[in-house]
Amino acid sequence: MNPISSPLLTDHYQLTMLQSYLEQNMQETAVFEFFVRKLPRERNFLVAAGLEQALDFLENLRFSPEELAWLAPRFGSSLIEYLEQFRFDGDVHAIPEGTIFFPDEPILRITAALPQAQLIESRVMNLLHFETLIATKAARSVLAAPGKLLVDFGMRRAHGAEAALLAARASYLAGFSGSATVMAGALYGIPLFGTMAHSYIQAHRDEAVAFEHFARCHPDNVVLLIDTFDTEAGAAKVVSLGRKLGVQGISIKGVRLDSGDLGAHARKVRHILNKGGLENTTIFASGNLDEYRLRELLSSGAPIDGFGVGTALDVSSDAPSLDCAYKLQEYAGKARRKRSEGKATWPGKKQVYRKYNGPGGCMAGDIVALEENDLHDGEPLMARVMRAGKRINQGVTLDEMRMRTLASYDRLPRFMTSLDHAPGYPVEISAALSALANQLDAEQAQVVSV
Amino acid sequence: MNPISSPLLTDHYQLTMLQSYLEQNMQETAVFEFFVRKLPRERNFLVAAGLEQALDFLENLRFSPEELAWLAPRFGSSLIEYLEQFRFDGDVHAIPEGTIFFPDEPILRITAALPQAQLIESRVMNLLHFETLIATKAARSVLAAPGKLLVDFGMRRAHGAEAALLAARASYLAGFSGSATVMAGALYGIPLFGTMAHSYIQAHRDEAVAFEHFARCHPDNVVLLIDTFDTEAGAAKVVSLGRKLGVQGISIKGVRLDSGDLGAHARKVRHILNKGGLENTTIFASGNLDEYRLRELLSSGAPIDGFGVGTALDVSSDAPSLDCAYKLQEYAGKARRKRSEGKATWPGKKQVYRKYNGPGGCMAGDIVALEENDLHDGEPLMARVMRAGKRINQGVTLDEMRMRTLASYDRLPRFMTSLDHAPGYPVEISAALSALANQLDAEQAQVVSV
Repeated sequence: MNPISSPLLTDHYQLTMLQSYLEQNMQETAVFEFFVRKLPRERNFLVAAGLEQALDFLENLRFSPEELAWLAPRFGSSLIEYLEQFRFDGDVHAIPEGTIFFPDEPILRITAALPQAQLIESRVMNLLHFETLIATKAARSVLAAPGKLLVDFGMRRAHGAEAALLAARASYLAGFSGSATVMAGALYGIPLFGTMAHSYIQAHRDEAVAFEHFARCHPDNVVLLIDTFDTEAGAAKVVSLGRKLGVQGISIKGVRLDSGDLGAHARKVRHILNKGGLENTTIFASGNLDEYRLRELLSSGAPIDGFGVGTALDVSSDAPSLDCAYKLQEYAGKARRKRSEGKATWPGKKQVYRKYNGPGGCMAGDIVALEENDLHDGEPLMARVMRAGKRINQGVTLDEMRMRTLASYDRLPRFMTSLDHAPGYPVEISAALSALANQLDAEQAQVVSV
Repeated sequence: MNPISSPLLTDHYQLTMLQSYLEQNMQETAVFEFFVRKLPRERNFLVAAGLEQALDFLENLRFSPEELAWLAPRFGSSLIEYLEQFRFDGDVHAIPEGTIFFPDEPILRITAALPQAQLIESRVMNLLHFETLIATKAARSVLAAPGKLLVDFGMRRAHGAEAALLAARASYLAGFSGSATVMAGALYGIPLFGTMAHSYIQAHRDEAVAFEHFARCHPDNVVLLIDTFDTEAGAAKVVSLGRKLGVQGISIKGVRLDSGDLGAHARKVRHILNKGGLENTTIFASGNLDEYRLRELLSSGAPIDGFGVGTALDVSSDAPSLDCAYKLQEYAGKARRKRSEGKATWPGKKQVYRKYNGPGGCMAGDIVALEENDLHDGEPLMARVMRAGKRINQGVTLDEMRMRTLASYDRLPRFMTSLDHAPGYPVEISAALSALANQLDAEQAQVVSV
């Protein structure tokens, strides 16, 4: 059993429901949509991510003999027989990864036999939720620090290994320059960054010796961590080393600051480096950073060229979850609506249309409409990405998605690019969709009164 | 390459440092310790967890030919040759999983050749940090809802698959009754819970029909979700169904509420059920719950028998990370100290002694001391758990750890069992440890002045 691709990555109730669906032969086509209910207060928009991993999961879903053997004593034989043959052979529609979106806008739709669409709920949500959470968080650092080198440093405090890997991917998609997590480089081809830890300096005891050893070992990528004992004293040692090594053709690419008042240290260190002839040596900062600290440092004019953003990025510290849902919108050709208090859904198969202020202009508003017989102006965001369980290969690489995402920030209305709360992007529900919701409520009232 | 057990689950700088260590033959014994720097404001204590997963990782760490082939063009051949033979053959000391602990107290110590101890940093931190985070969060719900059934419902919004699995394990360790995540049952033997989703009701349209179908399919575990349309109307249908099925020997074990004012609904539903003769049918609640909501509901006297705690548990919503570190405390027989501003460490190999108010009494205070020649009264918490890369099997099951953890809550001082901020548990640094830190600072000043 592979803990991250097993079909047992599901909630127990999916299996008890499946038993009941099979018993009643409820295997007609169901339509489920994934959407976010509302924005965290600290977010002005969302960035869709995780589709590729969700499609991988669907395409490869199989129950192994070992998994079936584990399930057998716990569930009836009819379920086990069904799961032996289980393949996901449904359709998937989605908006592309890296697309900006808003609450009530579906970013993924599953159209499949009810038991299939039900079983996959937990893991599909788990993937889309997390990568969207992180891409959305990362976009804020990208907007707060335009033109700066941004590196994901979050593995050690990410929530497990998969979170570290998916956070590296999602932040790169959203515009980060790369990650420190080696496996993310191997899995996704993301550029890797990293130099040395405090332990490296401590193991040498003499910081100057540690710097020189490192520089001679990595002459093409000399980035030195200078805060282990005293940041400015560290910078002075870098200058001495720079003189010594410069003669031998080794240049010091950068220094890293990781503690104290990063802005004040950066200014002093920049001065020390410049005075020592190291004008081209860059300053990289890390240590409890997030987009708010980046904005603060840059608006105070701190001479910092790049940032390692770690924990706050990988756990989305100020909003560690999104209020998202995966809901049945249609079954057996009939639209469905959940009416629970505060959690009512928009029924039916939907499309999202986005309007712009002219060609190349800013986003001007979205309409959530029914997919059929409810056409609107604007760019339709949802498209089919899987047919009968097979991915429709669109051949878009992660780097291409990243460039497209970065370009899309230019089309955000100015007021939404701020880190501050800025409500007001218009998302309209189409008249036809509202009418359908009302009609279903009226029908349900009849069911209840019967 | 297995994304959750690969040795490439490390930060890039670990590999660049390794190259340099090898070049300088810096392979003497290093001692690193993992500890938390400070408590989040919302926590009064921490619960250690994740050791078993960390030891698994260490014991099985191997570079596969595929991994080496990926690394080869990126790193020098001497590193690749070293990694081909790589095994972790160090010692590990730790405090047992489920133990309550505090900042500055190491919960794990690695004693190994410097390159080994360095390479494993990122993943060992990643595992210990997350499980400790979740066990600590879960303990609060257990304390807030004594005697209630508590179930982890968090998979869908956990940060990836591994987070969902480790959160199920850590919350069970901390006293939860089980999880909804099937794979957590298969991997760790955790009891599984779950009934039906709203989609099940919606697919049927007629809620009463859905209830009856489910009950007949699962006569031994009839728990019905009653809030899809109208909670009290749902409860009335449960009563009708209870009459009908009671005759046939099927009893309705419970109902689940998932929206609206859970306390008010629970009172009304309890009344409806009791009036209908279903006094033994339990009420289970879910929906945006955390320990604060549990306390509120129970202190208002809401007649709720169990809770599904989801997102808030699995992401530790009010404190989604811990300020933890893994630091070099000794190298080549000499204690080391990091002096960075606000991040100075206590050097050397340490032990933690815990005092109690008499046998069976409450915890009375801890002393962080040096392991050697610094004995104190109290229970020593650190013990060796791995020798030369092989686990010392202590044969303690997860269920036994869970029982021990539950018992340890009884020894918490009363003021610390509250959900509110309650500083003041005494953790003392021994005189010998303070003296060592001062001595190292003096020595370092000499290195700097040279």
